[in-house]
Amino acid sequence: MNPQSIVYSDDTIIALATPPGVGAISVVRLSGKYSISVVNKVFQGKNLEAEKSHTIHLGQIKDEDKIIDEVLVSIFREPNSYTKENVVEISCHGSNYIIKEIISLFIRLGIRFARPGEFTQRAFINGRFDLVQAEAVADLIASDSDTSHEMAMKQMRGGFSKEINTLRESLIHFASLIELELDFGEEDVQFASRKELKETVLTLKSEIEKLISSFRLGNAIKNGVPTVIVGKPNVGKSTLLNALLKEDRAIVSEIPGTTRDFIEDEIFIEGIRFRFIDTAGLRDTEDAVEAMGVARTREKMQKASLILYLFDLSKEKLVEIEKVVAELESQKIPFLKIGNKKDIAAPALLKEFGNDEEMILISAATEENLEELKTKILHKVHLDNINTGESIVTNVRHLEALRKTSSDLDEVLTGLEKNITHDLLAQDIRHALFHLGEITGEITTEDLLGNIFSKFCIGK
Amino acid sequence: MNPQSIVYSDDTIIALATPPGVGAISVVRLSGKYSISVVNKVFQGKNLEAEKSHTIHLGQIKDEDKIIDEVLVSIFREPNSYTKENVVEISCHGSNYIIKEIISLFIRLGIRFARPGEFTQRAFINGRFDLVQAEAVADLIASDSDTSHEMAMKQMRGGFSKEINTLRESLIHFASLIELELDFGEEDVQFASRKELKETVLTLKSEIEKLISSFRLGNAIKNGVPTVIVGKPNVGKSTLLNALLKEDRAIVSEIPGTTRDFIEDEIFIEGIRFRFIDTAGLRDTEDAVEAMGVARTREKMQKASLILYLFDLSKEKLVEIEKVVAELESQKIPFLKIGNKKDIAAPALLKEFGNDEEMILISAATEENLEELKTKILHKVHLDNINTGESIVTNVRHLEALRKTSSDLDEVLTGLEKNITHDLLAQDIRHALFHLGEITGEITTEDLLGNIFSKFCIGK
Repeated sequence: MNPQSIVYSDDTIIALATPPGVGAISVVRLSGKYSISVVNKVFQGKNLEAEKSHTIHLGQIKDEDKIIDEVLVSIFREPNSYTKENVVEISCHGSNYIIKEIISLFIRLGIRFARPGEFTQRAFINGRFDLVQAEAVADLIASDSDTSHEMAMKQMRGGFSKEINTLRESLIHFASLIELELDFGEEDVQFASRKELKETVLTLKSEIEKLISSFRLGNAIKNGVPTVIVGKPNVGKSTLLNALLKEDRAIVSEIPGTTRDFIEDEIFIEGIRFRFIDTAGLRDTEDAVEAMGVARTREKMQKASLILYLFDLSKEKLVEIEKVVAELESQKIPFLKIGNKKDIAAPALLKEFGNDEEMILISAATEENLEELKTKILHKVHLDNINTGESIVTNVRHLEALRKTSSDLDEVLTGLEKNITHDLLAQDIRHALFHLGEITGEITTEDLLGNIFSKFCIGK
Repeated sequence: MNPQSIVYSDDTIIALATPPGVGAISVVRLSGKYSISVVNKVFQGKNLEAEKSHTIHLGQIKDEDKIIDEVLVSIFREPNSYTKENVVEISCHGSNYIIKEIISLFIRLGIRFARPGEFTQRAFINGRFDLVQAEAVADLIASDSDTSHEMAMKQMRGGFSKEINTLRESLIHFASLIELELDFGEEDVQFASRKELKETVLTLKSEIEKLISSFRLGNAIKNGVPTVIVGKPNVGKSTLLNALLKEDRAIVSEIPGTTRDFIEDEIFIEGIRFRFIDTAGLRDTEDAVEAMGVARTREKMQKASLILYLFDLSKEKLVEIEKVVAELESQKIPFLKIGNKKDIAAPALLKEFGNDEEMILISAATEENLEELKTKILHKVHLDNINTGESIVTNVRHLEALRKTSSDLDEVLTGLEKNITHDLLAQDIRHALFHLGEITGEITTEDLLGNIFSKFCIGK
């Protein structure tokens, strides 16, 4: 083959695979039919086209006479690669200049710059994994706690997909029997027992409802629990927040380059992220208008999934507190009653407040009872006994598809009730199958794929 | 071997090798005797200890039952690796959480976190390359233009080292002859021709002086040319700066993830960086006190290697300009006379100014003559005819060692002049050899190495 005569098809793609920035090494990745041959064209060292899959080769990337870099080239031959295509990874020095030169060189040779998520999209299209697993790759990269990591890993390894497929298969069984009835036309034969079908649909619906309700937990694990601290001025809201933040920061790993970027006012309790809303006013001084009943506070509370109501044990009276509690109860959002300044409260008062099982007494200043508070927080939002063995929906797309499936199944049930004809019944079942199939990608559209993979980072 | 019984020696090190942050993949690197066996202990897939060098293996990193990630593991067996030790590269998903978990796992297994530059230091100690080449690795990573990249690449490939070694060898020849004379003690035998020695030392000195004077260029390429724009208020200083910046920005590659971080007020002309000093006052409005003669302007000029003196062709008179020029000349810093607002200047005036060969007439507003200005700028600082084929000193440490060598050679010449005894002459030559040897690391101390490698990034 004369290398000069190759016209590299644009189905071979290239992108930087490692994070941008300066480091010891960076990796540029190519995927597609010509990835090995195009790299070989500018590689000085060995004839890469003669080398085996999963081998590494030292050499130089040259742009005519100019040495761009000394690199290690890793070869993966189809189908034994991430994308199931020929893949080459060029491990170069971690310099923006060098990365730019290498990518430019290949683009001049006719290789196309990859779209976001295109490597993973190809892995999906080539059957390496299903849509749920592809989406889990992005979740895995974004995971920042034990629980979010565990959920993403489980999804990536196919746990959730398997469950969806099991549900789908039980329905496919009936669908095929009813399709068979259609073939018999007017003869009104029933292959599919309506009674069994109804039982199956009811079981399916209960499974799907369980998955739908797991989303609250999944979403909390993935995106955090929006939380609000309310209370009168000077009850110690910022002191409490600082004490919680401080503990969280202290347990952070000191490994350079791995410290997570702290988001102001966000803490992890047992791997669950609690995002404190609109605490800007709390950070420097106690906000003077931060008393209950202010319109702004109400508005904040509406965004929250948990309210921490803080009051001052050394000043406030039970009757005042009860008034606020009544108001909080009307909001229908889970809340915790927290008595602060335990250390300077009158003992008699403490006793009075202490009888309330629903209340926790702390001292933000001396950091007393903070562990108990954390336990109560987790319990309040039902995140204290997470069974990560069960499937948990974390993805809004999956939630939407499950909701549609559930409503399709309702149609099937209504149809059974009304004893509708098999062709109408078949149609309702097909709808349910369609929506379930969308989750794992058994059924896909260009739009759906574009929507999913455009949210990935480039190079993935 | 029972894996439970291994006590991993702390000479095996680990670090993140890719830039920190989120990306498709990240690479964690281990180097040292036990790197393959310790990775094998937590790797589920293959028995890595039985695998060949330069091979890649898919599997999982497990912390007991918990799967941390699905990874690709690359094996490099000593001495065929970057450090010449056993090296393992773990290519994992680019998540801070996963990187942290993987590194923590290995630290718990007794692997030590690497110091900055420790991989490269080991490569040096194990004879993979000399000190100049090791230092060039850091320069290569930091390179941001064709010229700085080319210089770093040449150094990394041993061009500069070879030159230093050639110089050193010619001196070693005489050193050994004179050491021989020492063995003959009092007999006053001369093996080394004093005439030839003098010629060699003179040649050496001229080579070294050439290298020393190349540092001005090397430093300009590596660190940029500090430049100042001076002129009266409203002559168009900020307009000129913006026009120069705009052109530079426009030619930047659009490859995502590779855009260099722009430093305010820094432009590249033919790969040479010009850093504009203290232009903060120019950005929004013309600084009213920015006229010549102000103490602050004088101070700024002292930091500059180039002064751009801008005046208004539509307003200022030749006599005024000549006064400023006289003052600039007394500063002994290269400067360019730039007449601005060519587009609105009176034709007669233009003619008057145009006769001055040392002057360039532009219009910053209409971007007229900017290319000519750039050419003049390069010419003014003698950077218009860079011969990158010649060795260029870019490193302050090398410069210092060359200066010491030069002064040692002066001692040798003085000694020859004064006809000193061979033992004193031998000592002077040894000094010169010592300082030359420090450059490539033929001669090293712990301090020297610590000083060099501590400036590297971790993971390199």
